[in-house]
Amino acid sequence: MNLKVSDIGEKRIVKYILSKCKSITPDDCAVTSLNNDLNLVSTTDMLIQSYHFPDFMDYYDMGFKSVTVNVSDIASMGAKPLGYLSSIALFNDLDWECFKQLFQGILDACDYYNIPLIGGDINQASEIIISGTALGLSKNVLRKNVYNKGDLIAITGDLGLQGLNFYKKIYKQPFAKVREGLILNDNGITAATDITDGLSSELYEMFNGEMGFLIYENKFDITDEFKKQAESLNIDYLDLILNFGEDFELLFIFPKCKKKTLEKLMNFKVIGEVIENSDIEIILSNGKKEKLVNKGYEHF
Amino acid sequence: MNLKVSDIGEKRIVKYILSKCKSITPDDCAVTSLNNDLNLVSTTDMLIQSYHFPDFMDYYDMGFKSVTVNVSDIASMGAKPLGYLSSIALFNDLDWECFKQLFQGILDACDYYNIPLIGGDINQASEIIISGTALGLSKNVLRKNVYNKGDLIAITGDLGLQGLNFYKKIYKQPFAKVREGLILNDNGITAATDITDGLSSELYEMFNGEMGFLIYENKFDITDEFKKQAESLNIDYLDLILNFGEDFELLFIFPKCKKKTLEKLMNFKVIGEVIENSDIEIILSNGKKEKLVNKGYEHF
Repeated sequence: MNLKVSDIGEKRIVKYILSKCKSITPDDCAVTSLNNDLNLVSTTDMLIQSYHFPDFMDYYDMGFKSVTVNVSDIASMGAKPLGYLSSIALFNDLDWECFKQLFQGILDACDYYNIPLIGGDINQASEIIISGTALGLSKNVLRKNVYNKGDLIAITGDLGLQGLNFYKKIYKQPFAKVREGLILNDNGITAATDITDGLSSELYEMFNGEMGFLIYENKFDITDEFKKQAESLNIDYLDLILNFGEDFELLFIFPKCKKKTLEKLMNFKVIGEVIENSDIEIILSNGKKEKLVNKGYEHF
Repeated sequence: MNLKVSDIGEKRIVKYILSKCKSITPDDCAVTSLNNDLNLVSTTDMLIQSYHFPDFMDYYDMGFKSVTVNVSDIASMGAKPLGYLSSIALFNDLDWECFKQLFQGILDACDYYNIPLIGGDINQASEIIISGTALGLSKNVLRKNVYNKGDLIAITGDLGLQGLNFYKKIYKQPFAKVREGLILNDNGITAATDITDGLSSELYEMFNGEMGFLIYENKFDITDEFKKQAESLNIDYLDLILNFGEDFELLFIFPKCKKKTLEKLMNFKVIGEVIENSDIEIILSNGKKEKLVNKGYEHF
């Protein structure tokens, strides 16, 4: 039997691609120097109806989400969004009104992020596929792996909400944290990513193999309401917070001395710190320390 | 019964999009001014296995084609390619070796066009979907609708070859005409597009409603060999030439006085001219004049 792509899995496919192609970095966006002063930042992400959109998600929200996932990568680089392109595949039987709602979602998201929709492509497929490309500009960019021992690990907002939403629509759609990314960049912070695939997965992405991360469950400010909702759906609330993703909050690492400055400019929660020991660990609310397992979403 | 997207059709969907979104132009690429001197040119195109790849096409060629279709749009703007991003969806059962061939096709195409592959995304779907984004830079750009009465209409090479290839693999894959686009731009030519959807369709795209086009069948240098191959497959050879597309030759319009200069720099065939009468017509090899019907490929 031949090996199939499902035997390899998404993470190993990506590893293969990175090994074959040195011009791709593991950061959230490609960075292309335009001249001494300016970098073009670009990213593309494809959303496929049966994998990325919950059944109850309406067409407007699909369109909006397709922009958010891409702009979120621009935000995580600390860049200013410049323009957006959207390649859309539709199925024959889709109601024209539904397409119009989907497209309105794309337009409104571009408006929300204050970027022009500048191009795209219409195709035919057996389900809805939206492949977006977001472009941005920045002098400096936030990378994933640049930090020091003793630095603090923080997130811009609550996690797990979109995880719950995948089972039952409770919360509003998330927005990309463009403003926060720009503030981090302006203030000399160097390490950030957006939480697309789950916190555990993103921490492993930021892990540079030299220093470790220690995070604390009780720093997430998990509400009883959230725990109750997860319980009623028979889901482990901590699994939603650590492993689901899709909240598009920024995860960033910064020197302690910048904490007060940042607090004046934006909301965030410190959830842990960079430690000498090269493991990624969590201290649970019951006091137990555990290794954090890399369980983020993986295709195939 | 509700209207379906298949009732509307690709061209009217695109018209709807253009009417709702003034920041999208009908040109092959989006043009974003970076400063007084430089424009960022960007484009995205999605290829879907069951619609865009003939059954016998190998995986390497699929990968290569996905780059060519996008770089061809950069070429038609007369821009210099800068970088390429590729979002790929695969099905579970795809042989790992086939993916490696597909990816090698993408890498080799990027090498051929001398651009770095800078980013992308891996997804899961029921068939292979490749959505590419090509970026380019240019001081000036070639548009579709800028020309004058008496200007000549030309193409950079033979048409219809990839049309035949869709039925039976005879010819090699086409390449995007990057060099030719740059020459046209450097020499002050203002109107060009790439022939993706068929010559008739692209002529209607270039049509500005004020002047018409007259083209001549006997200027295409159609070989007996080509006619014979079409006949053996029971296809009208002229339909292949006028309405198939996918050859990625450039179609451009230029002032007569530039003909000699261009001839020294690149190969092309003059196939017609811009006329006062606002129709698009063809003079067939039998001497008859006919209105050219807009019959290019349309989804849905």
